Amino acid sequence: MLGVCYYPEHWPRERWSEDARRMRELGLAYVRVGEFAWALLEPEPGRLDWAWLDEAVAVLAQAGLKVVLGTPTATPPKWLVDRYPEILPVDREGRRRRFGGRRHYCFSSPVYHEETRRIVTLLGERYGKHPAVAGFQTDNEYGCHGTVRCYCERCQDAFRKWLEERYGSIDVLNEAWGTVFWSQRYRTFQEVELPNLTVAEANPSHLLDYYRFASEQVRRYNRLQVEILRAHAPGKFVTHNFMGFFTDLNPFPLGEDLDFASWDSYPLGFTDLMPLPEEEKLRYARTGHPDVAAFHHDLYRAVGRGRFWVMEQQPGPVNWAPHNPNPAPGMVRLWTWEALAHGAEVVSYFRWRQVPFAQEQMHAGLHRPDYAPDAAFFEVQRVVEELGALSLPPPGQAPVALVYDPEAPWVYEVQPHGAEWNYLALVFLFYSVARRLGLDVDIVPPGAALQGYRLVLVPSLPIVREKALNAFREADGIVLFGPRSGSKNENFHIPQGLPPGPLQALLPLKVVRVESLPPGLREEVEGPWGRFSSGLWREWVETDLSPLLRFADGLGALFRAGRYLYLAAWPSPELLGALLVGLAQEGGLSPKPLPSGLRLRWRGHLVFAFNYGPEEVVLPVPSGVRFRLGGPRLSPYEVAVWEEG
Amino acid sequence: MLGVCYYPEHWPRERWSEDARRMRELGLAYVRVGEFAWALLEPEPGRLDWAWLDEAVAVLAQAGLKVVLGTPTATPPKWLVDRYPEILPVDREGRRRRFGGRRHYCFSSPVYHEETRRIVTLLGERYGKHPAVAGFQTDNEYGCHGTVRCYCERCQDAFRKWLEERYGSIDVLNEAWGTVFWSQRYRTFQEVELPNLTVAEANPSHLLDYYRFASEQVRRYNRLQVEILRAHAPGKFVTHNFMGFFTDLNPFPLGEDLDFASWDSYPLGFTDLMPLPEEEKLRYARTGHPDVAAFHHDLYRAVGRGRFWVMEQQPGPVNWAPHNPNPAPGMVRLWTWEALAHGAEVVSYFRWRQVPFAQEQMHAGLHRPDYAPDAAFFEVQRVVEELGALSLPPPGQAPVALVYDPEAPWVYEVQPHGAEWNYLALVFLFYSVARRLGLDVDIVPPGAALQGYRLVLVPSLPIVREKALNAFREADGIVLFGPRSGSKNENFHIPQGLPPGPLQALLPLKVVRVESLPPGLREEVEGPWGRFSSGLWREWVETDLSPLLRFADGLGALFRAGRYLYLAAWPSPELLGALLVGLAQEGGLSPKPLPSGLRLRWRGHLVFAFNYGPEEVVLPVPSGVRFRLGGPRLSPYEVAVWEEG
Amino acid sequence: MLGVCYYPEHWPRERWSEDARRMRELGLAYVRVGEFAWALLEPEPGRLDWAWLDEAVAVLAQAGLKVVLGTPTATPPKWLVDRYPEILPVDREGRRRRFGGRRHYCFSSPVYHEETRRIVTLLGERYGKHPAVAGFQTDNEYGCHGTVRCYCERCQDAFRKWLEERYGSIDVLNEAWGTVFWSQRYRTFQEVELPNLTVAEANPSHLLDYYRFASEQVRRYNRLQVEILRAHAPGKFVTHNFMGFFTDLNPFPLGEDLDFASWDSYPLGFTDLMPLPEEEKLRYARTGHPDVAAFHHDLYRAVGRGRFWVMEQQPGPVNWAPHNPNPAPGMVRLWTWEALAHGAEVVSYFRWRQVPFAQEQMHAGLHRPDYAPDAAFFEVQRVVEELGALSLPPPGQAPVALVYDPEAPWVYEVQPHGAEWNYLALVFLFYSVARRLGLDVDIVPPGAALQGYRLVLVPSLPIVREKALNAFREADGIVLFGPRSGSKNENFHIPQGLPPGPLQALLPLKVVRVESLPPGLREEVEGPWGRFSSGLWREWVETDLSPLLRFADGLGALFRAGRYLYLAAWPSPELLGALLVGLAQEGGLSPKPLPSGLRLRWRGHLVFAFNYGPEEVVLPVPSGVRFRLGGPRLSPYEVAVWEEG
Ligand SMILES: [Zn+2]
Ligand SMILES: [Zn+2]
Ligand SMILES: [Zn+2]
Repeated sequence: MLGVCYYPEHWPRERWSEDARRMRELGLAYVRVGEFAWALLEPEPGRLDWAWLDEAVAVLAQAGLKVVLGTPTATPPKWLVDRYPEILPVDREGRRRRFGGRRHYCFSSPVYHEETRRIVTLLGERYGKHPAVAGFQTDNEYGCHGTVRCYCERCQDAFRKWLEERYGSIDVLNEAWGTVFWSQRYRTFQEVELPNLTVAEANPSHLLDYYRFASEQVRRYNRLQVEILRAHAPGKFVTHNFMGFFTDLNPFPLGEDLDFASWDSYPLGFTDLMPLPEEEKLRYARTGHPDVAAFHHDLYRAVGRGRFWVMEQQPGPVNWAPHNPNPAPGMVRLWTWEALAHGAEVVSYFRWRQVPFAQEQMHAGLHRPDYAPDAAFFEVQRVVEELGALSLPPPGQAPVALVYDPEAPWVYEVQPHGAEWNYLALVFLFYSVARRLGLDVDIVPPGAALQGYRLVLVPSLPIVREKALNAFREADGIVLFGPRSGSKNENFHIPQGLPPGPLQALLPLKVVRVESLPPGLREEVEGPWGRFSSGLWREWVETDLSPLLRFADGLGALFRAGRYLYLAAWPSPELLGALLVGLAQEGGLSPKPLPSGLRLRWRGHLVFAFNYGPEEVVLPVPSGVRFRLGGPRLSPYEVAVWEEG
Repeated sequence: MLGVCYYPEHWPRERWSEDARRMRELGLAYVRVGEFAWALLEPEPGRLDWAWLDEAVAVLAQAGLKVVLGTPTATPPKWLVDRYPEILPVDREGRRRRFGGRRHYCFSSPVYHEETRRIVTLLGERYGKHPAVAGFQTDNEYGCHGTVRCYCERCQDAFRKWLEERYGSIDVLNEAWGTVFWSQRYRTFQEVELPNLTVAEANPSHLLDYYRFASEQVRRYNRLQVEILRAHAPGKFVTHNFMGFFTDLNPFPLGEDLDFASWDSYPLGFTDLMPLPEEEKLRYARTGHPDVAAFHHDLYRAVGRGRFWVMEQQPGPVNWAPHNPNPAPGMVRLWTWEALAHGAEVVSYFRWRQVPFAQEQMHAGLHRPDYAPDAAFFEVQRVVEELGALSLPPPGQAPVALVYDPEAPWVYEVQPHGAEWNYLALVFLFYSVARRLGLDVDIVPPGAALQGYRLVLVPSLPIVREKALNAFREADGIVLFGPRSGSKNENFHIPQGLPPGPLQALLPLKVVRVESLPPGLREEVEGPWGRFSSGLWREWVETDLSPLLRFADGLGALFRAGRYLYLAAWPSPELLGALLVGLAQEGGLSPKPLPSGLRLRWRGHLVFAFNYGPEEVVLPVPSGVRFRLGGPRLSPYEVAVWEEG
Repeated sequence: MLGVCYYPEHWPRERWSEDARRMRELGLAYVRVGEFAWALLEPEPGRLDWAWLDEAVAVLAQAGLKVVLGTPTATPPKWLVDRYPEILPVDREGRRRRFGGRRHYCFSSPVYHEETRRIVTLLGERYGKHPAVAGFQTDNEYGCHGTVRCYCERCQDAFRKWLEERYGSIDVLNEAWGTVFWSQRYRTFQEVELPNLTVAEANPSHLLDYYRFASEQVRRYNRLQVEILRAHAPGKFVTHNFMGFFTDLNPFPLGEDLDFASWDSYPLGFTDLMPLPEEEKLRYARTGHPDVAAFHHDLYRAVGRGRFWVMEQQPGPVNWAPHNPNPAPGMVRLWTWEALAHGAEVVSYFRWRQVPFAQEQMHAGLHRPDYAPDAAFFEVQRVVEELGALSLPPPGQAPVALVYDPEAPWVYEVQPHGAEWNYLALVFLFYSVARRLGLDVDIVPPGAALQGYRLVLVPSLPIVREKALNAFREADGIVLFGPRSGSKNENFHIPQGLPPGPLQALLPLKVVRVESLPPGLREEVEGPWGRFSSGLWREWVETDLSPLLRFADGLGALFRAGRYLYLAAWPSPELLGALLVGLAQEGGLSPKPLPSGLRLRWRGHLVFAFNYGPEEVVLPVPSGVRFRLGGPRLSPYEVAVWEEG
C-alpha cells in the first residue's frame, strides 16, 4: 500500500538497482517514474531515446516493484516551444510566458494537442503492455502555477466555439450574460473576447463561463491522454495527481475519466498558505492543521468515486511555502496512517531521494542527497511493520456528508462582495467543526445521492441545479445550508423569486438583502444554545418561519423547515459547533468535542485516532477496548487504532 | 425634489407603465435614463433603433415624470471598438485595455470625438425639444476606473500639441521643467513622451503638466457634448454626474460648462475606501462618516456655482467597496435630508430596482429584483411626506470657507515626500473639525471671492496664483493656511524666496526646511490652548513673528500676521479643534463641540440636525424652539429641523 | 579632506565665482562636477559645447579647488535614445522602459558602449591633463533604480556568449544547471533565454548565472570607461560612487579597476528602508541607525583596498525615502567625523545648494535654494575648525573581520527558502552586535587574507571557494560561521557530502536538514551563557562534536572544532551578543557592551566616540585620558576623540 516517486534520470545508472533493492526492502510496492522526462525521451525532434527508461523500468521490475508511468507533458522540451512558440501560455496581464520552469503550455493549443498525442502514443505503445507497469499518471498537477487559465489567441478561438456550442445563438448568450447592461451586446460569437484587461470589471457571466471553459479545456486535454492510454494499455489504470486547496480546476468531471483520483499531500505548506487564524498556523506549523490532509482525502475519495491514492506525500520540509518547517517527529507516519484511515489505496512518498540541484533541491525526500536515509525513511519502516500486523477493512459511508461545489469558488472569485469572503475558508470551517466533534465526513459534489447520511452540510451552494435539488429532496438526514446558497442561477443572475432560488421548494424563505462586513465589526446572535459572535456576512430573510437564532436586532439568523435549515450568516466556529452538536444528536449521532489536536476516523470496525497537538491526550474510549496500535494515552503526533466494541 | 435612475431596457416593456405610475405615486419628479444604452440605440453601425427609447420616454412623460437623458458615450459598443481599436485606452503599464466593462475609450481619440459628435447629435436632434425631457447628463462619471489618464499614441500627440500651445517654444519648456537636471533637455516638442515607464521617477513638472493636460482633455471632450446639446436642446439643462473622493479630474472648469453639477453619493463605500482611522471606519460602517456626504455636497455646490443635484443616491448596500454593509435603518432618509439641507435641488436614487444580472447585480435599489419595494422605498416615502410639510428657503453663504485646490492632489501625488501625505485626508480633517464644531462650510476653489466669510481655511495650497492671492488679500475674515501652502510655483519649482512664496506678501515668513515623519514618531506642540500631539509633517520657519504654538524644541509651529495664520505642521484633530474654536470665536462665531455623531446645517432660517451615531443625543437648542421635524432628543440615524430663534 | 558636489549648469554663471570663493572659504578642497551633463556637453548629435564646463572648471581652479569630473553616461540625452532605442533597458516584466528619469540604458548595448567610448574619450582628451582636475568619477551609482538587470535581446545575446565562455560546451551547462530536472535540457547556447517570465520559478543555477553575468556586465562597462580615462588622464585617480544596502552589483571586482572606492552616504533613508525592528527605526529616524554608515565605510574601505571617499554625504532631509526626517542637530558633523574615523580620505557633501526644480528639489544641500547657508553648512564649518587641530594617523587593521559575500544575496534571492531570510539583515546583525561591544570591524570579501584578526565573523557564506577555504585555514583567530554557510556549490547545487561542504575540512559536521519558521514561532536555545530565543531558521547537524548550545529538544545549535565554530540557527541579538563576548575575550579582546546609541572607533592611537542616542552618555574611559575633542560626558549627537593611553 506504499509507494514512492523516483527519478532514475537524476541519478547514476549504477545506483538504480541498489535503489530498487532498498525500495523493495523497505516494503514499497509502487514507483512513479517518467513525468517531466520528455527532453530525455526525445532529445531531438523525432529522435526517441527509450533505452534509459527501458532499463529503469526493467531494474524496478526485477526488484519486484510495480511502475506508475507519468506522461511527460507537463514539461515540453525547449526545441518544441521554439518550433511552436504558440504553445506558450499568455497570462492575465497579456504577457506570453517563457520556457524555463514547467507547465509552459496552453491547454487550447492545437499544436500541443498534436504533440501530446504523438508522445503519449509512443509511450503507450512502448509500455502499455509492459507487465511491470501497473498504470499511468497523466501529466502532473494540472493547473499548478496558475495555468488553467490562459489568455492567448487560441484560447480565444476555442472559447468562442465553446460559447457557440453552449448557447447556439448569440441572442441567447446576450440574454444569459445580461449584455443589455453597459452596452455589452455582441452581434456574433466572433466579437467575444477573453475577459482580461477590461477597463472596469468584466461581466460576471462572461467570467464564470470563461472559468468553466478553462476547466473543461483541461478535462478535454486529459481525456485526449486517457483515450490513447486506454487504447494502448488495456487493463492498466490511469490516474492524475491533483493538488490541495486548488480551485481553478473542477476535479469531478476529470475524475470520471480516470480509474481513481490521486492527490499530492503537503500538509505544512497548505497550512502556511490557507487563510487560517494566525494562532492555528503557529500551533500547527510543524504538523499541518489537523483537518488539512483529511479534507483532501475525503475530497479526492469522492473525485475518484471511492478510490484514491496519495501520489505525493510530504516526507520532510518542502521548498515552496513562505515558511518550510521540519515536520514534528512522527508526522510522516501519522499522515500515512491517516491517509489509509480515510481510504487511500496507496500512499506514495515524494520523493525517494532529495535531489541536490535545480528548482526542488530544498525539498526533502526519504533519503538525503548524500544517499543516507532521512528521518522519514525510518517512519515509513515503522508504518510497514505496523501495516503487516493489521488488515484494513473497506471504508464505509460516513454519517455526515459535506457538499463541495467546484463552481462556487469561481462564482465567489468573480463576485466576492466582501473582501474576506472565501469559499474554501467557509467549507473548511464546516468540515473542521464537524471533525472536531468526532464526526466522519464524506465530501460529495452537488447532485450526488445523499441517502444514508444523518447530516448533510452545504456550506454554500450558489448555483442549485435540478439534480442537486432532487438529491436534497431525497436525502434522509438533516440538511444545513450555509449563506449565499441558491443565490445565483446558472447564468450568474440573481434567481427570480430571489435566493435561495430553487431551495425555496425546501425552505419557504427569501433572502431579500445581504451585506459584507469588515472583520472588526462583529454582531451577537442568540438562540437556544447560547450567545455567539458572528461577522463578515449577514443576510436579511423574509419568511413566515420562526427563527432559531436571532441577530441583536431581533431578525433571524437561522431558519428551519422540516429537516432543512438555512443559516443566514457566516458563523463563528463556536456557533457552528453548538449547532452541529444539536443537529448531529437529533440525527442519532453522538458528537463529542475532541481535544483540539485530536481527530478520529472510522474504517470499518477499526477506529483511528491521530494526535496533531503537542500535548498528550486521553482517548475517549470505553475501558477494555482492544487496541491494535498504541493505547488509550496518545502522545503528541501519535496514532492509535482500536476495534469498535 | 426627488428622482430616480431607471433602465427601461433592463425590464420587460409591459412593466414600464406600472413602474412609471409607481414612481409618480411615490412622489418622484425626475427619471434619469439612457446613459450606457448606445448598443441598444445603434445595434449595428449606422442602424439606429429609437423605438424603445421613444416609448420609454413617452411612458414616463405620460405618468407626469420629467426625464434626464444620459448620453451613452461611457459605453461604446463592441462593433465600434472593433472598427476603431485605437479608441481603447492604454494604461500606465503600457497595456491596451479591452472591451468588456465600461469607459473603454481614450479622451484624446479623434475617432472617438467624431463618433461622439455623431451619436450625441442624433440624440440631441431626437430628444432635444421633447417636452418631457428636462435636461441631459453627459456621459457618466468621467474618469471612473482610472480613465482620466491614458498613455496611448494619440494622447502623446495631443500632449505635444498642448505643450506647444502652453509653452510656445521648447526653450521655455526646458526652463519650466528644469530639464537641465539629469540631461532631460528636449530639442523639439516631438521629443517629449508621456511620463510613464521611466526608469527613475519622471520629472515632476512633466508629470504635473500631463495631469493637467489629461484633466483638460476630459473637459474638452465634455464641452464637445455640451455644445451639441445646447444647439439642439435650447432651454434644457446639461449636467454631469461627478464622483466622490476622486481627484484625477478638476471638476471646476468642467462645472463652468454645465448648468449645474451633479454627484453620485455612496457614503458607505467612500467611508470604507478613505484613509480614516480604523475605529472611525468601524463606528460609521453602516452610516458613512458623518462628513463624507456633506463634504461632497459642499464641494459640488461650488462646482455647480451654487446649484447641484445628487444624481445617484445610495439606497442600500452597494457592490463595489471592499465591504458592503447594509445602511442603518433611516440612513437613506437622513442622507436625503442632509443633501437638501446642503442645497441639493434634486436627490435622485440609484436605482429604481436592483437588476438581477451583470456587473451591478449586488447593488441595491428602491426595489428588489423581485419587484417588491426594498427598505429604501419606505424611507423615501417618509421623506416625501415630510417634504410636503416643509418649504425650504434658499441656502445662504456659510460663515466658513474652505479652499479646495484640485491641483493640489496632483502636486502631492507627484511628490508626496512622506508616504502618508494625502491631500484629501488633510482637507477632510480641516472640514471635519470645523463641522464637529457646528460650523457650516462653503468649499471654494482657489481664487474665488472670500468676502463675507468669518474664517477661511486653506488646508494646503501648494501653488498660489495671483488671483488666489488677491482673494486672500480681499478676504474679510481670518485666513488659516496649512502646511506646504505656497511651496511650489506654477512650474513645480520651489519658489524663489522659498515657501510660502507669494503668501509672503501676507505672512512675513520663510519655510526653510520641511520633514516627513513615520506615523509612530509624534512630537508635542504647545501653546495658549494646551499641549497637543503632532506628526507626519513638520516645517522650519524663519521669521520675526513670534510663534503662537511651539514644538518641543521651542521652534514655532503656528504663526500669525494680522488676520493671516500659517500652520507649520500636520495637526492632530485635537490641536486643530482647539485652534478653530479660538479663531471662530474671534471671528464672531459660536463654535460648539458637538457629540461625535451629530452634525448641524443651516438652510436659511431652518436648522437641520443629523445623528450619525448609534446613541441618542440631546440637541444643543434653546428651549421653546419650534421644531418642524423631530424634537430635541435625536435618536440614532434621525433628523430634526427647527427654526432658528 | 572635505568636498562638495556642485552643478554649475543649474545656476547662473555670474554665481559661479562667488560659489567657488565660498567653498574655499568654508575649507572644502574637492568639487565634483559634470555627471548628468551629457545633454549640455553635446546638445545636438556631434556638436560639442565645452565652453561652459571649461569655464566652470577654470572658476573652481582659480579659487584653489580641485575638480572631480564625472562622466555623464548615467543620463544619455533624448536624441541619443531616439536614434538608438535599443539603448533603453527592458524590465523583468518585459517592458521597454522610457526616457525621462536617469539610468535609461542597458549595460549590454553595443551601441551604448560605442557612444560611451566616444563621449568619455572626448572628456578625457579635454580634461585628462587639466591641472585642476584631480580625478574622475565614472558614471553615477551603477545599478540605481534596479538597472543592473536588463531583460532585452542584447542582454540575451551577451548572456549566451557569457555562458559559452563559462561552460565551453552545452553539455557542461546542462550538467551545471541540472537541466535533467523538468526537461530543461538545452541543445545549444542559442536556446538559452533570460530567466524572466517563466511559468514556474526559473532554474536557480540559471538565475544565479544571470545575476553574475549582469553584475559582470557592469564591471565590463565600467572598465571601458576606466581604460579610456587612464589613457588620457595619466596620474589622475578614477573612482565610482557606490550605493548603500545595494546588492545587485558585486562591488569588489569593480573596485579592483579603480584607484579607490567611493560611496554615497544617506543614513536616514537607509534606516527607513532596511528591515530593522520598528522601535529601532523610530529611535534612529533622525540620526540613522548607529551602524548604517559605519557598515558601509568598512565595506567600501575593503572595496577600495584600504582607500575610500564618501562622495555624497547627506546634509539634511533627502527626497527619496518613504519618510524624510530632518537630521538631529549635529548629525552632519557626527557623520563626517565618523567617516574620517573609519578611514575616509575625503567626505564630500551632496550638494552645495538645494536645487529648486526637477526630481531632486526636495533634497537638502549645504545651502538653501535661496542661496542662504543651510544648517549643515555651519556643522561643516565646525568640522573644518576641529580638523585643523587634529592630525589623523593612518587607520590600522581592526581586531575583528567580517566576511561579506556579494554573491550570497543573489543565492538567497533565488532561494530564500523562508520569507524573512535576508542576507543583509543577517550580516548587519553580526556587524551591529560586534559594534555594540565596542569592537572595530574590517569587512572583507571571501578569500581575503585573515591573518591578524582575533575574531572572524562569517554570517553566512553559501558558496565556499578554494581561496576562501584557504583563508579560513590560515586565519589566526577564532572563526564563527553562521547558518547556510557552505550550503551550495558554485553551480548552485547542494554539495556532495552535504553542507557545509568544503568547510567540513575545518568542522567535522554535516547539516542534514534545515527549516524556515514563521516569525511568531520561537524556540529556546540554552548554553553556558544562558537561555536565549531563536527563530526564523534552524538546522539539524550530524556530528561527533558536542554542542555548545542546544535547542529545547536537546539537539545542537552551536558547534566547535578547534578555533572554528558553526552556528546552526538565526540568532537573536542577545544570543549573538553573549557568544561574541565570549569569543572576543578568548581572542584577547575586551568587549564591552556599550550604551545603545554609543559607538567607538579607533584610528591609530586616536579613539573616536559617537553618540547616536538622545541621552547623554558617560564614556567608558579611564580617568586622566587626554581628550582631543569633547570630553568624558557625551551629549546626544556629539563626538569625542581621545588618545589611547
Ligand atoms: Zn491559451
Ligand atoms: Zn489615449
Ligand atoms: Zn539589456
